[in-house]
Amino acid sequence: MTRIDDLPIRDELRGQSPYGAPQLDVPVRLNTNENPYPLPEALVQRIAERVTDAARQLNRYPDRDAIELRTALAAYLTRTAGHPVTTAQVWAANGSNEVIQQLLQAFGGPGRTAIGFEPSYSMHALISRGTGTGWISGPRNEDFTIDVAAATEAIAERRPEVVFVCSPNNPTGTAVDADTVLALYEAAQAARPSLVVVDEAYGEFSHRPSLLPLIEGRPHLVVSRTMSKAFGAAGLRLGYLAADPAVVDAVQLVRLPYHLSAVTQATALAALEHTDTLLGYVEQLKAERDRIVTELRALGCEVTDSDANFVQFGRFEDAHAAWQGLLERGVLVRDNGVPGRLRVTAGTPAENDAFLEAVRELKKGQ
Amino acid sequence: MTRIDDLPIRDELRGQSPYGAPQLDVPVRLNTNENPYPLPEALVQRIAERVTDAARQLNRYPDRDAIELRTALAAYLTRTAGHPVTTAQVWAANGSNEVIQQLLQAFGGPGRTAIGFEPSYSMHALISRGTGTGWISGPRNEDFTIDVAAATEAIAERRPEVVFVCSPNNPTGTAVDADTVLALYEAAQAARPSLVVVDEAYGEFSHRPSLLPLIEGRPHLVVSRTMSKAFGAAGLRLGYLAADPAVVDAVQLVRLPYHLSAVTQATALAALEHTDTLLGYVEQLKAERDRIVTELRALGCEVTDSDANFVQFGRFEDAHAAWQGLLERGVLVRDNGVPGRLRVTAGTPAENDAFLEAVRELKKGQ
Repeated sequence: MTRIDDLPIRDELRGQSPYGAPQLDVPVRLNTNENPYPLPEALVQRIAERVTDAARQLNRYPDRDAIELRTALAAYLTRTAGHPVTTAQVWAANGSNEVIQQLLQAFGGPGRTAIGFEPSYSMHALISRGTGTGWISGPRNEDFTIDVAAATEAIAERRPEVVFVCSPNNPTGTAVDADTVLALYEAAQAARPSLVVVDEAYGEFSHRPSLLPLIEGRPHLVVSRTMSKAFGAAGLRLGYLAADPAVVDAVQLVRLPYHLSAVTQATALAALEHTDTLLGYVEQLKAERDRIVTELRALGCEVTDSDANFVQFGRFEDAHAAWQGLLERGVLVRDNGVPGRLRVTAGTPAENDAFLEAVRELKKGQ
Repeated sequence: MTRIDDLPIRDELRGQSPYGAPQLDVPVRLNTNENPYPLPEALVQRIAERVTDAARQLNRYPDRDAIELRTALAAYLTRTAGHPVTTAQVWAANGSNEVIQQLLQAFGGPGRTAIGFEPSYSMHALISRGTGTGWISGPRNEDFTIDVAAATEAIAERRPEVVFVCSPNNPTGTAVDADTVLALYEAAQAARPSLVVVDEAYGEFSHRPSLLPLIEGRPHLVVSRTMSKAFGAAGLRLGYLAADPAVVDAVQLVRLPYHLSAVTQATALAALEHTDTLLGYVEQLKAERDRIVTELRALGCEVTDSDANFVQFGRFEDAHAAWQGLLERGVLVRDNGVPGRLRVTAGTPAENDAFLEAVRELKKGQ
């Protein structure tokens, strides 16, 4: 039998394992920040209608530039993110991971570097490596906020071509304020200039307004988003960005032609028609998230303030043992490798009750 | 206004334009090798059913490993390509372009090179560049077959890590025989060893059997396929490969997690249920392709033998002027930049009649 290491793969891939959380079959799965609410039946029917129309022309390539979808996403952002956004300022791809990959292909790549402030969304580092971009791990404060002085110093010293700012930050839940982003942007422009990517995958769950208005007058600032979380559509794989139209032109130089299928475009358009219902679920999840924070603290946990649909909690002497203890009680959470901490996704009230009860038992057993 | 060149993009992207054929609104579009037959209504309804089921769980991430789909693709290849193929030997992605990108991320990339024999599918070179892989343009004979002696010499001398063989070749329509592939494979193994990718995007339209049985005992040989052409599903963006299971493991190290949406998986599975109907359309298209070859020759054109759903024809003193002349007659074909030649996709009988009539008029006017 041939093994991977027998193949002429790139040296840096040798000995690696594929990225991804374990997909285990347990009663309560709160490990991948999915939205626990299935799409409403009216939306399911609308998706079927739109996909049926698309399927009748499936022998043709899809709209390569996804104009109708980008227009609908621009309207959504204009309405919800506090800033007017045009079709020309929006780009969409198969998940925000592909958006980030395209940005790195255009602005990063061999001989260039990207920085992120860790712990943060681990795909920023992984996609950097996958595109040949050198990765720089920047610092955070003890409380998981960005250490602005240290971060701007790292940017000035290392002069990366791409700066990632995840807000709310995954896996900590920490929101980043506009002043911090502006300080990082100015440091990044002074150093090189470089592209600053604000990853707002969890933006809709934040107590604070979107950072999107900051793109005005800042052609090197990009805000990325996803329909996986707030739109309850992780299975759809639809990520998007808002930025200066020139950035959208630039990613079109590296995107694979016809990257976004006609069924994906049709499904996303249907979901956008049901924005208000889906944002109603977001409000429920925010309330549940706040309840989880409060109850975990009442149980004596150390909990990081959260602006996302998940909560980082601890502190455990052995986080992996605690993860295992919760799994044995039927609750799957995520061990992101942050020492002493675990991450739980806000689920349905019943799922959250089951999680909190499992933590209670775990604490009792300690 | 900010222009692309004002942005800190990679130097090699400066001055470039996005890849893609013009999407013009003309009566007869025979420029992108689409299948002219819309999916049968029974299949459209089956897609709606399967997508409805998928939409009911769209809040969850899709099956990251697409097991059901890869199993169905393996069964399709086993039945049609003359060789038993298992699920573990198949990988699927958003179009064969993404399959090729993943292969180059794992086996090409910075400091490595890939070779193709041109003219050939131009995305091989473009995706190589997009992944930081150096591109080597290998030779072909005057009749567009591969010059085996020159090709093996180029491989021995340049020692590329990846070798592309497109069969049937786009845009010429030329099939490659098994002996040629074996000679290139042996040269590539002797040189380094390197990965040989046989791109069979148009395999179902060939007069010859698939080259897929050659993967047996050759762990560095990959055959890539697509549902865009034979399955009449260009809008679906579903490409796949068959190879040693170790190659499938290797691409999983570089694929973006959850790259293949639940709606894409559902739609592809529905289409695979209707394989026999769709392969019936392929037979009609093969007959039309052969008719186009015969009639173009009767009109005095120089026509390259075709094993694909398109035909390369000429010779024109000014291919672009001929392209324009056909466009003015309502027929859009493709100018791939091959001197003196154009490429026409086999459409419906009526579309092909309109194309042949336009060529007749064009020849008369010369």
